[in-house]
Amino acid sequence: MKFTINRSTFVKNLNHVQRAISSKTAIPVLTGIKILATESGLLLTGSDSTISIEAFISTEDESHQLEIAERGEIVLPARFLGEIVKKLPSDSMSLEVTVNFQTIIKSDQAEFTLNGINPDDYPRLPEIDAQTTFNLPANLFKQVIQQTIISVSDQEIRPLFTGIHFVLGNDKLKAVATDSHRLSQRIVPLNSPKELADESIQLNIPGRSLNELVRIADDNEDIEMMVTDNQVLFKVDNIYLYSRLLEGNYPDTDRLLPSSHETLLEISASELLGAVERALILSNEGHNNVVKLSISSDDIILSGHSAEIGNVEETLNIINAEGSGLNISFNPDYLRQALRTFGQQDVQLTFQSPSHPFIILPSQEADNFNMVQLITPIRTPGN
Amino acid sequence: MKFTINRSTFVKNLNHVQRAISSKTAIPVLTGIKILATESGLLLTGSDSTISIEAFISTEDESHQLEIAERGEIVLPARFLGEIVKKLPSDSMSLEVTVNFQTIIKSDQAEFTLNGINPDDYPRLPEIDAQTTFNLPANLFKQVIQQTIISVSDQEIRPLFTGIHFVLGNDKLKAVATDSHRLSQRIVPLNSPKELADESIQLNIPGRSLNELVRIADDNEDIEMMVTDNQVLFKVDNIYLYSRLLEGNYPDTDRLLPSSHETLLEISASELLGAVERALILSNEGHNNVVKLSISSDDIILSGHSAEIGNVEETLNIINAEGSGLNISFNPDYLRQALRTFGQQDVQLTFQSPSHPFIILPSQEADNFNMVQLITPIRTPGN
Repeated sequence: MKFTINRSTFVKNLNHVQRAISSKTAIPVLTGIKILATESGLLLTGSDSTISIEAFISTEDESHQLEIAERGEIVLPARFLGEIVKKLPSDSMSLEVTVNFQTIIKSDQAEFTLNGINPDDYPRLPEIDAQTTFNLPANLFKQVIQQTIISVSDQEIRPLFTGIHFVLGNDKLKAVATDSHRLSQRIVPLNSPKELADESIQLNIPGRSLNELVRIADDNEDIEMMVTDNQVLFKVDNIYLYSRLLEGNYPDTDRLLPSSHETLLEISASELLGAVERALILSNEGHNNVVKLSISSDDIILSGHSAEIGNVEETLNIINAEGSGLNISFNPDYLRQALRTFGQQDVQLTFQSPSHPFIILPSQEADNFNMVQLITPIRTPGN
Repeated sequence: MKFTINRSTFVKNLNHVQRAISSKTAIPVLTGIKILATESGLLLTGSDSTISIEAFISTEDESHQLEIAERGEIVLPARFLGEIVKKLPSDSMSLEVTVNFQTIIKSDQAEFTLNGINPDDYPRLPEIDAQTTFNLPANLFKQVIQQTIISVSDQEIRPLFTGIHFVLGNDKLKAVATDSHRLSQRIVPLNSPKELADESIQLNIPGRSLNELVRIADDNEDIEMMVTDNQVLFKVDNIYLYSRLLEGNYPDTDRLLPSSHETLLEISASELLGAVERALILSNEGHNNVVKLSISSDDIILSGHSAEIGNVEETLNIINAEGSGLNISFNPDYLRQALRTFGQQDVQLTFQSPSHPFIILPSQEADNFNMVQLITPIRTPGN
């Protein structure tokens, strides 16, 4: 194998595929990036057991300055390859595999010899025989991910909760995530492919894979999503992201969303966010990370308390309040993350009781559950 | 104690004094910032055992919007005070000490109550009865520090080597640092104060204190330096930085600087720096962090080697070479840091033998030791 290439092009694509590689992998060959040179271009691959990212660099795009002198393949240590290519002296570089997988990288006067790994040891990527293909506008799909991924669990004990649950079909896309303490849901319109007709499909995609997708996709690109029984493939520009799906039946979360309330509070999301960020300075420090919201006919007060440090109280500037008074306590980090998904919008918080989960809806769409954040309160002696 | 103040002014000055506070302090009161309110303004103090930073905020500067309603003093937990003030909702804030050192901080609707600490427990800062005062242009003094601090040791076993050794007098300033593997020296002209006449004074200032001084001083300011037997005080604008001096007689380092050489290499500092940064990608990984320079009549080659990863070789584009051939090995991190102090200058490297320290001088001032970096080589089986 032998090729010359524009160094910036190579760096950019190495960075993409490197994201799939885990430093904790137990399989030595997966610490490497696989490079396959064919007549039409270079295919770079990085992978761990859950996610694989491929980047294809075509010889046809002149800006790549890619010339394949000899076809072949090799696996090179990802971290070193990335660092070396980043620091090469010139804009142009060559890479050549010699005997025993020894690989020579040249740029100007600098010449690296890297110990390569036998590419035959590299696992085959799953063949995606696409059963169903969706086209997703990147800006919308990234927003859906970012608004729900906050409730994805990082506890491997319940693997299904480490992903976002998607339901696609009937011209809409529904995304739900929950870690059993909170829940995030977003529903957006989406043209279903013809072959899906009136059906819908469900899939659970690991949060980690979706984080990488958000990183890779530019807002103005289109994402192509191909789904099989146990894999999903996202294609963005020249990048292919393969992810394992999480197995199991996601619980019915619709029944968790309350249909009535006793108390309603309307407030600017950013105003409440500011107050929460102040309250959690102290509460984060104590042993119990709790902030209290006190709603009475006189005023609405958010307060935080730490026995060692002190306490904080803030009267909220609200837009509207309805229903009965209430004292409710909760984890301020949950509320902070939930409020951030609403940006500069006004929101409605609706409560049933101090012991029931409360929900946050955008004021402009408070009559449906197209965008909802749910938080389970904390029972404290005080309420 | 009670005052109102512009929040940005308070944040900026808290940030300065907070830098002196160590999270590792064993003295509880030193985790706090002391605030003293007098008629003329606020004095903020942060300290650990080595360094103290004071910031004075005057009532006379209208931009501070400082009004002292009641004089007094208090010590408040530094980390929380900083975070709270940073996140307050409005541009204006007030601070009031009530009973039992309880301190109320208000801004708009937000009201924090912090558990303060008895200010009587706060240690007194040393009185600086200035024996000798120097005026240093900040840009020059910061350069002197940055060019020598790289050789300061982080090993507390030899405390004297954790600081920079200064000699002031005879209208010049000399700065030297060494960790016994390398040495950095810079000499610059400096007007001596009249009372010093033909004498010179020596002092050893901890590297940590000088790092903070570099951070505090803007390039276009003047630094006033006052020296006593065991303390130094730097005054920059409204900030006072007190530092303990390191005790002991600094070794005579002049005898370490070689007066002759067998081999000379002239090269652009940035060209050599690039090659060193490439070579150390591999050498940093191995068990011995070594890079080799091979000088022969044919070419000058810098090379690095790691048994597991591979190796790198680069023929250097030099300006000039004189004297006999040589193979010499050294720690590439030392050479990298040394080369960075020369910026875009051309430099001369002069060698006596593979086992003697070599030095780097700027080509434009290679006839003196006003700016010199010295590095001790590593003996390897190969040379």
